[in-house]
Amino acid sequence: MTHMDTKAGDTAEEQHSGALPFDVFARDCPSRPVLEHLTGRWGVLVLAGLYQGPVRFNALRRRVDGVSEKMLSQTLHALERDGFVHRTVQAVMPPRVEYRLTDLGRSTAAKLLDLIGHLEAHMPAVLAAQQQHDQSDDGN
Amino acid sequence: MTHMDTKAGDTAEEQHSGALPFDVFARDCPSRPVLEHLTGRWGVLVLAGLYQGPVRFNALRRRVDGVSEKMLSQTLHALERDGFVHRTVQAVMPPRVEYRLTDLGRSTAAKLLDLIGHLEAHMPAVLAAQQQHDQSDDGN
Repeated sequence: MTHMDTKAGDTAEEQHSGALPFDVFARDCPSRPVLEHLTGRWGVLVLAGLYQGPVRFNALRRRVDGVSEKMLSQTLHALERDGFVHRTVQAVMPPRVEYRLTDLGRSTAAKLLDLIGHLEAHMPAVLAAQQQHDQSDDGN
Repeated sequence: MTHMDTKAGDTAEEQHSGALPFDVFARDCPSRPVLEHLTGRWGVLVLAGLYQGPVRFNALRRRVDGVSEKMLSQTLHALERDGFVHRTVQAVMPPRVEYRLTDLGRSTAAKLLDLIGHLEAHMPAVLAAQQQHDQSDDGN
């Protein structure tokens, strides 16, 4: 996190000479839109949903419960452009289109699954915090 | 990830008897909105930005470059309600309002920082993938 400490006063040159030339905290860094693809409303679930192996569009749509066809398409396209997802078309009739994680997508999805597992395991604490918060709001 | 394998055909009772009764893949699971607070447009950066220690609103706003006052307020409020962020008011004049991570917020932020570090380190590969993708689009 040293890149955060030193960000504000540094010149662009100094920023880019460090070990981490990209900084999601900087509004114009190209890493920020990519972070948003990964962590956006559907990005997390799509990447995590692909972790088990290649899957076809409709099967993925069933797995990511609640996603619309349009949003799933858009999410997959952004993740494909960023190099996290690979789309293959097999020349059978009808053509068989599958989505799979690239190596980078797989290592990234593993981190998202780690986050998801952490959240799911701590949901009782989250629900308790929500309840406590809402009760103290009522008391105001 | 076994909860994903077995989700589709299971009864609610079976789902909730497992080690992970919560499932972000299920559209109505209360974990899903919490995941969205964590990973939404500003949630990731706010949690990561609080990792270094307690910080006041305006300092956090400078750190999370580009966030509006309104969005930072909303993001902090959701994360406070979920139990990730604690807001303290010191009775000085003028009152000093600080935000800090709770223990759960800290363990969660560590996972987000891990994701951010991974993304920042692999940005050259992402930019290369984007370039290659856009060039092959041009060729169509």
